[in-house]
Amino acid sequence: MSVITGTRGETVPTVPPGTPAVDTADVSALLERGRTLSTPVMRAAVARLAPPMDTVAAYHFGWIDAEGNPTDADSGKAVRPALALLSAEAAGATPETGVPGAVAVELVHNFSLLHDDLMDGDEQRRHRDTVWKVHGPAQAILVGDALFALANELLLELGTVEAGRATRRLTTASRKLIDGQAQDISYEHRERVTVEECLEMEGNKTGALLACAVSIGAVLGGADDRTADKLEEYGYHLGLAFQAVDDLLGIWGDPDATGKQTWSDLRQRKKSLPVVAALASGGEASERLGRLLAEDAKSPVFDSFTEEDFAHRAALIEEAGGRDWTAEEARRQHAVALRALDEVDMPAHVRDQLVALADFVVVRKK
Amino acid sequence: MSVITGTRGETVPTVPPGTPAVDTADVSALLERGRTLSTPVMRAAVARLAPPMDTVAAYHFGWIDAEGNPTDADSGKAVRPALALLSAEAAGATPETGVPGAVAVELVHNFSLLHDDLMDGDEQRRHRDTVWKVHGPAQAILVGDALFALANELLLELGTVEAGRATRRLTTASRKLIDGQAQDISYEHRERVTVEECLEMEGNKTGALLACAVSIGAVLGGADDRTADKLEEYGYHLGLAFQAVDDLLGIWGDPDATGKQTWSDLRQRKKSLPVVAALASGGEASERLGRLLAEDAKSPVFDSFTEEDFAHRAALIEEAGGRDWTAEEARRQHAVALRALDEVDMPAHVRDQLVALADFVVVRKK
Repeated sequence: MSVITGTRGETVPTVPPGTPAVDTADVSALLERGRTLSTPVMRAAVARLAPPMDTVAAYHFGWIDAEGNPTDADSGKAVRPALALLSAEAAGATPETGVPGAVAVELVHNFSLLHDDLMDGDEQRRHRDTVWKVHGPAQAILVGDALFALANELLLELGTVEAGRATRRLTTASRKLIDGQAQDISYEHRERVTVEECLEMEGNKTGALLACAVSIGAVLGGADDRTADKLEEYGYHLGLAFQAVDDLLGIWGDPDATGKQTWSDLRQRKKSLPVVAALASGGEASERLGRLLAEDAKSPVFDSFTEEDFAHRAALIEEAGGRDWTAEEARRQHAVALRALDEVDMPAHVRDQLVALADFVVVRKK
Repeated sequence: MSVITGTRGETVPTVPPGTPAVDTADVSALLERGRTLSTPVMRAAVARLAPPMDTVAAYHFGWIDAEGNPTDADSGKAVRPALALLSAEAAGATPETGVPGAVAVELVHNFSLLHDDLMDGDEQRRHRDTVWKVHGPAQAILVGDALFALANELLLELGTVEAGRATRRLTTASRKLIDGQAQDISYEHRERVTVEECLEMEGNKTGALLACAVSIGAVLGGADDRTADKLEEYGYHLGLAFQAVDDLLGIWGDPDATGKQTWSDLRQRKKSLPVVAALASGGEASERLGRLLAEDAKSPVFDSFTEEDFAHRAALIEEAGGRDWTAEEARRQHAVALRALDEVDMPAHVRDQLVALADFVVVRKK
């Protein structure tokens, strides 16, 4: 059974006993197929941008380094392209039918990364300096805008009715993504955020675009709205499971695997699920945590904090039940996602792969 | 005959002798109709945004002040909405058919203003503090993104084949807009820019979206691609004429009318048309100007510059022919725009109004 490893070496189960073990080789092949089919189209799309945006985008995607030399940097897990190709197959179309959708979704995802990193002041992503750090804020804004426009352009130039429907779904997802980032920013300035507010924000920020990835290939392949909606339901809850795991990794993840600092989300004072759940649990540890975080909020920076200070807060979150609740939430969303799949008629091997991907999302360590 | 007034009270003709006088009342009515029909739809669209983006957008559009009180601030000339409604009528449809197009184009235009003001560090627009100044950079980025997404959403939810075609044209125009801003930024860091490069940049930054405004209503009204392309040709050259006049106003405009500082573009060291044309003219004044600007480029700010220093530079630009060349360019583009109209079959009163709008664009003082 699969686990998330804590920083003290203990393990936290994230999938229920009895869940079949994920065939990692199978999932790797799936992610690899998504990357292989979508990367050439992505590169050709980026090459359309006016200089220096093409270069800045190539840096962002990890194709070149800051000096412009070709690199082979980590360009992300590529879960969304893999989902978009499976989505086309779920509608009985070829995986290739899903490629423009896969690329469009990845472009929107990366548009949001470029802008969010700048808004949040994040200096590192995937072990590398972020675009605004290397190329300046103006290029981060501009290239983000360009990728967003390019996403719609790629779909609409297919010129089909299906492409129009796919673009509409992508636009709806993009708006939710932006709403989610607005909520995320506004929550930072508030003392308390409810669990419901946190879930709504994560649904917008992560669920909506994963949902679109799982419907867009099917729509391009001619699926009706009911099928697309059900696939989106799977994707939306998969996104919430994904984000719950991300929130666990943001506090207890292994820095070597995630590429982030220890206690990353605590350092950024993120009101992520484990924190809001711990604060909502109402016990004695929850109250102590509440007082401590209210005190922390008065000092503008964490410069004087030691590893022990963060470890102490993480321990309180865990004691107040925030860690267990979030792991349980990942399992709950995983289960809801799989139930939505039962309502779509699709080839058995496609369903198996969507299940394997869902399992992968909740057991990953980075 | 209509004129641009110089700061010393002299006048510069921008339309050729013999051009019929613009019926200002008629053009005002046209702009007012565009505003009246599109504003309620625009307000309803903005109301969809998650807080605080709805408030920030309302501030940007001049509907409320920085404290949230309703205002009636100048929300721009609204040339684009007026064009989009005429565009629908050019295809034999009702002006109302063009409204979603008018609103979508205005949303894209305002997305670009929000982002450009931040990238350029501009603190004032239409006599008011810009959004990033009042609400911070993150909100300027976020609300810009949201307006861009909203533009596509409004069109695509019409759910028609025409809406898909209209969105495709809008996306193409948006990409050019972004390319133009990238060129504008990169030119700032270069010592010399050719007249051709400047025209290409201005065509992207101003021509493409005006072109889209003039085709989008027609496309929504069922026009074929040839008609839409010809209308875009009119709009593109109208945009270049518009920008040439803007470049004249950016140096010699009346600050009371434009809401900008005296010698605004010189203060910002913009390589606008009068400047690049003057540098390209090759005479003695041109060479003196080139040496002076090269010297200026070595000092990071203009803090020590007096009004006389700027006036001296403006006089050199004029002496080297930059002012005359740009006024002539506005007339040239105006003429090309009108010729494109001759190739579209449309009701006579619609053509008359498109001509009146073109005349207005080259004679305006702000």
